[in-house]
Formats: sequence, structure tokens, C-alpha cells
Amino acid sequence: MNGTTSNGARNANNTSVQINPYTPRYADLLSRVNNFSIIESTLREGEQFANAFFDTATKIEIAKALDDFGVEYIELTSPAASEQSRQDCIAICQLGLKAKILTHIRCHIDDAKIAVETGVDGVDVVIGTSSYLREFSHGKDMAYISAKATEVINFVKSKGIEVRFSSEDSFRSDLVDLLSLYRQVDTLGVNRVGIADTVGCANPRQVYELVRTLRGVVSCDIECHFHNDTGCSIANAFAALEAGATHIDTSVLGIGERNGITPLGGLVARMYTADKDYIKYKYKLDKLRDVENLVANAVGVEVPFNNYITGYCAFTHKAGIHAKAILNNPSTYEILKPEDFGMTRYVSIGHRLTGWNAVKNRVEQLDLTLTDEQVKQVTNKIKQLADIRPQSMEDVDTLLRNFHHAVKSGDPSHVENVLSTPAVK
Amino acid sequence: MNGTTSNGARNANNTSVQINPYTPRYADLLSRVNNFSIIESTLREGEQFANAFFDTATKIEIAKALDDFGVEYIELTSPAASEQSRQDCIAICQLGLKAKILTHIRCHIDDAKIAVETGVDGVDVVIGTSSYLREFSHGKDMAYISAKATEVINFVKSKGIEVRFSSEDSFRSDLVDLLSLYRQVDTLGVNRVGIADTVGCANPRQVYELVRTLRGVVSCDIECHFHNDTGCSIANAFAALEAGATHIDTSVLGIGERNGITPLGGLVARMYTADKDYIKYKYKLDKLRDVENLVANAVGVEVPFNNYITGYCAFTHKAGIHAKAILNNPSTYEILKPEDFGMTRYVSIGHRLTGWNAVKNRVEQLDLTLTDEQVKQVTNKIKQLADIRPQSMEDVDTLLRNFHHAVKSGDPSHVENVLSTPAVK
Repeated sequence: MNGTTSNGARNANNTSVQINPYTPRYADLLSRVNNFSIIESTLREGEQFANAFFDTATKIEIAKALDDFGVEYIELTSPAASEQSRQDCIAICQLGLKAKILTHIRCHIDDAKIAVETGVDGVDVVIGTSSYLREFSHGKDMAYISAKATEVINFVKSKGIEVRFSSEDSFRSDLVDLLSLYRQVDTLGVNRVGIADTVGCANPRQVYELVRTLRGVVSCDIECHFHNDTGCSIANAFAALEAGATHIDTSVLGIGERNGITPLGGLVARMYTADKDYIKYKYKLDKLRDVENLVANAVGVEVPFNNYITGYCAFTHKAGIHAKAILNNPSTYEILKPEDFGMTRYVSIGHRLTGWNAVKNRVEQLDLTLTDEQVKQVTNKIKQLADIRPQSMEDVDTLLRNFHHAVKSGDPSHVENVLSTPAVK
Repeated sequence: MNGTTSNGARNANNTSVQINPYTPRYADLLSRVNNFSIIESTLREGEQFANAFFDTATKIEIAKALDDFGVEYIELTSPAASEQSRQDCIAICQLGLKAKILTHIRCHIDDAKIAVETGVDGVDVVIGTSSYLREFSHGKDMAYISAKATEVINFVKSKGIEVRFSSEDSFRSDLVDLLSLYRQVDTLGVNRVGIADTVGCANPRQVYELVRTLRGVVSCDIECHFHNDTGCSIANAFAALEAGATHIDTSVLGIGERNGITPLGGLVARMYTADKDYIKYKYKLDKLRDVENLVANAVGVEVPFNNYITGYCAFTHKAGIHAKAILNNPSTYEILKPEDFGMTRYVSIGHRLTGWNAVKNRVEQLDLTLTDEQVKQVTNKIKQLADIRPQSMEDVDTLLRNFHHAVKSGDPSHVENVLSTPAVK
């Protein structure tokens, strides 16, 4: 067939070149999908995960691992939360990491005073602005919020460090209130305003609309924080970047309040799809698995079986038609290259969905010689056996070797013998 | 404060009524978020999960559980895959379930002939249309695909059962080819056309655009199938429904090729947010956990710690400010009501992020009497202890009871004694 398609092109050598259809094919001036920063909050949001208790040594180990991976910011629990939290904040600031260190505080001048003394590079300030939180949490009105915000922001700025001002539960906040408040703090000179889906229920089109609107109102950076209760935390982060957000909050494995936030690995998978070279340049992708194992171990959870990139089946191919195409060209069913993440591909063939192309590939790997017709015969035998119980790679290899041996013997009864051996339950 | 906000209203009794901000506030004629069907594919896509081997009894148990939960369709592995697959297909069709039974076949007349003899209510036909799959999988051109599709569709229709025609890897297919093919099969009278993100890399805005475009081209139903490699399978399903798709493919826990597809529980969480009453009416939500445990057990995996709805921390609240608001009104930080899913809420207080409002609530649960000032004193003690090691609920309760006992003794030295007891490492 002709290699030139709507998604392909020909280079100077007239060989087919596939263009990534997940990258916009025209310039999108609003989009920041290839120009954003990660604010890694395992040591803040992650500490709000049910199981999390990080001692000082563990916090330092996690901070160093995140810094080595390449995240731009590391966010820490408020030093006002407890004395140890304060001391840990100071200790991490003294590590001399490349990543900027932030701490996350309530919009109180007392908290701000404690925060700026720890040596952090910036302070993330948060206050609830939704009618729910105004009524049932702090009980304050917008005039009060605005006055408090001004006091805290001016104070942090006077110390010469970064300041972010975020609402909480932004998607249930009054839009006009929200935009008024953000324009006000933008004028005060905050580095970033933050949008937070605190209840985890925003959807991507809603996120795109809100961030795009906000992008037209403020000139500072825009940070976004998405909970994952309804499964949109990664997609929402992507939509936010498409709409001009500049910073995304993550945690390792997504740990946080309830079922957590945008996971670091999941966001990396998504952004790799949009601009592989940018992500490979920014982050040490082959360290992802180590960072995840470190955190999973620290909070006593298993990495989910279906975890992005590092889950044990993320690169396992099983169906016959998938296996065939993968063996011809991995891009057919794989947008993430396992080797970029220090992972390996696995094509499973010992099951009843198997296909002869995948079996043929294994025959070649084992350096056996069989005709296509013979491979089809032995594939049917694998299907019969696998209808009774799953066949391990060793089971399959033994069968292939026995079959090959029988074929090479030149005695049809030997072949017949291998193919007719009754399957053992 | 005034209870009327942009997201609220007042009813006849002049009490504040919160309107769900996640439901569109104006009619959206395209949207099917409250009028869609689930095609549950645990017994097809799920069988392509690395670990899956379902014997007949397990398949029947899963099919019955899904039917009881209330899914509209159950999709089964092709009867052409193996002899046992064919027999199982027949057995499940004979169960007399409320759900319609489908099987999923390649676009081959031989497969179709086997499928229609099993007693299924419909056949889902699939063929790869992307340049990748056309080049590296089956090697056929669009004219060939079109001819094959016509033959298979006409044959299945002649048997009086449902037929769906789907492309594979739709987002990397040529748009004009795709729309031409779909318009052709729509004219032939297919029940549904299918869009499949086979590589798991589409994003919600892309999905919305493609489905909306397709909605203007065909008059039949539109089914969507999303893999989750880059974390958008739930958000993409939602975007597809917003754009007019009518059917969504799911599997329990999302099991499938690689890291799987849209999970049943995650989709339910998302759609519940958009229209709670509709979802509660359609599905037995309190059966979700049983279905998930059944499938997790059958394929030998743990339900992920952060699973939607049923993960063990999905309704655990920890941060002080969260806990306070949750205790005042669960809607502040919870969009999913745990009791609708047979789950319970847990407010964690034995940690250094705790707040005195949450502690006060526990004091009241224990039927102890303390002033706010006293609660604040004992909260500080909890923070001190939790800085050294996490405090279990029993640890906290013992401290609260001891403190209460000391306060009631009227002897300040007893109180002092409780508050100053050195924490044991």
C-alpha cells in the first residue's frame, strides 16, 4: 500500500514517516501542553492520604527522589500543622535541591509568618471560596476573604519569595466572585493563582472553559489541582494545559485525601503522548518506577495492577490480532515506548485468544524452523490446551520444541503424537 | 450569610437549596449523559487482561452478577476464538438474563457464521481502519474493508439480530475514510457504529469533536470504547456522551489489554455526578463492590487502594479543614454519597494534620463533655503524639477518655499529667 496517508508523510528518502496524531496539527497559542511545570505534592497532599505517615528520613528520601526525577517544584505540608512538620520543612529546604520548595498554608497571617521562616522558595496560600465551604467550613464572606488574601500575599511578597493564591472547591464557587478575587490578587503581584477541584468532580470541558476564561483575566501563571473521585484528574490536567494553565499538582501514585489527585506517572504518560521529546528532556523517565516503589512502600500500599506505565500489565499484549500487529510495528497498539521508561514489552501467547502470527514470532525467537502451516497446527494445539488451563511461557516453549523435534524427525506419527496428546486437567 | 448564590436557590420555605453545578444549567440537545447504555465487556475485553482465564462457571457467575447490577449489555469473547469460548457463549445465552448478550468478532464471514448460531442478541463487528493497522495488521485497503463490512453486516442482519460495526484505532484513522465507511454501514441498517481508542491515547476534546462530527453523519446509535494507557478512559467516555454517543464499553476494574479500558465503577462514579437519580434508578449501586471483588478474585488481583468508590480510602477524610467541613455537611468535600454505594465515611483524626473540630466531633461520639478550649488542648496533645508515630482510633479514644476523666476529677494536676505524659517512641 501507499505509505502516505492523512496521518503520514514521506521524507526525502521516500520512506513512510508517521506523524503523531495526538499533537495538534496547527499552532494553538493558548496551549501549554509542551511548556508547563509540575508541582509535586506527595509531601503535602500525599500526607493527607489515609495511610501516610512520613518520618523525617522518609520525607528527605522522597524529596531527593522527586528532585532527581526532575519535578520543578516540591510542595510540603504546612509548618503550622505540627512542630515536626515545621522542622522537616526546614530540613528539606537545606538539602540544596534543584527543585523549588513550596509549603502550603491556610490564608492566615500566623501560618504565613511561620512559613516564611523555614527557608522555602514559595508559599501556596489556599482558602475556600465555594458557597459550600463559606457556609460549612470557615463561614466567611468574600470581602473577608479578599482582605485576608491581601494581607497574606503582601506579607509573603515582602519576604521576596514566590506566592500562589488558590481558591478551594473552585468549580462550585461563584464565577464572578472568583474572577474578581483573582484579578485583585493578580494586581497585587502573585506569581500564580490556583484552581482546585477539591471534591474531584469537574469534567474536562468544564475545566477548559474555566481556565480559558481565567487566562483572559489574569496575567500571572495558573496552577491547577484535581482530585480523582470521578476519574478525570489526568484528563482535567490535560484540558487545563490546553486552556493555558502553566502548573499542575501531582502526587506519586496520586495519593491524597480520599482516592487522591492527578498521579505523577499518569500525567507523564498523558503528556508524553502530546510531546514525547519535551517530556523525555525534562524528566528522568526511567526513575519513575523507583519513585513509585519508594512511596508505595512508605505508605504501605501495592502499586495498582493497572497502574500507568509501571503496572505489571501495562505493556502486556494478549489478543491474537494485537500480538500480530505489535510484532510487526509496536506503534500499532502502543503509544508509550516501554524502553523509554526502563520497562519491557511482553507478548502473551499461551491462551485461547492467541494467534498464529504471535506463535510464529516465538518460534523464531527459539530459533526453530516451521512452515506457516505447521505454526497454525501448533497454534490450534495451544488453544485446545489453554481452553483447559492457562499455559505458561514454559508450557508453550516445551510444546513448540517437542513439535519441532517431531516435525524434524520426518515421521508423521511423531507429529500426530504431539498434536493429539490429551490435555491434562 | 445569604444562602442564595449562583449555585444555590431558595425553595418555598426560604431554605437554601444547593443545585448540582455538575449538571448543565441549560438544555444540551446533543448530550446523552442521562440517557445511555453500558456494554459490559469483562467477559470479552476483560479476557484479554494478562491474568484472565475464566472457566465456564466463573463466566456464568460474572454474567449473572453484571446482570443483577443492571448493565444493559454483556459482551462475550468471539466463539471463533476457541471451542470452549463457543460453548460458553451458548451457555450464557441460555441463562435468560435481562441484559442483552453480544459477542465480538473480526469482520470475517466465517466468524459471523459461528457467532449467529450461538443464540446471541447481537454481534459486534470490528476491523482496523487506521493507516497503522492497515499497514501492519491486516494489510487491506478501504475498498476491501467496505466490501467485507457489507457482506458481514447483511449476513448478521438477515438473522434478525443486532449488529454493530466498529473501526479499531479510530483516532488514527483518516477522518474522511472513517465517515464514508460509517455513513455506508448506517445506510445498510446497522444498530450502532463504534469508535475505539485502541491505543488509549485520545483526549476528551478530541473525542468530543469526533463524536459530534459523527453524530451529524449517521442516524444509528454510537458506541465508544476507550483504553486507559494515558488515564483518560473515564473522561473520554463522558466527553463522548456529551457529544451524543449512546453506548459506552466498560469492564469491571477496567481489566483488558495492557492497563485496560473504562472501568465500570469509575464510569458509574462519573455519571452519578452528572445525574445521580438516573444512575441510582438504572443500577444496583450497592452491588458494585461484590461484582468487583468477584472479578478481582477471578483474575487474581487486588482491588487498587485508590479504586473509585470501593477503594478503602475513597471516603476517608484526614486534613483538619476537610474533617471540620465534612462533619458540618458531607457535601462540602464529597460528591459521592457513600451510603448510596453501601459504603461508609471515615474521618481520620489520629494524625498531625488533625483539627480540633474533628476531635470535638469524636468527643461527642464518645459521649464525653469538654469545652472547646479543652478540646483544643487535647488536640495539641494528639498532634504531639502523632508527630512521633501515627495514632490509631483506639489510641485517640484512650487519650480522650483519660483527659476527660482528669478534667472531671477537678484536679488540675491530673489534667497536667495527661497532657505532659511523654510520648513513647
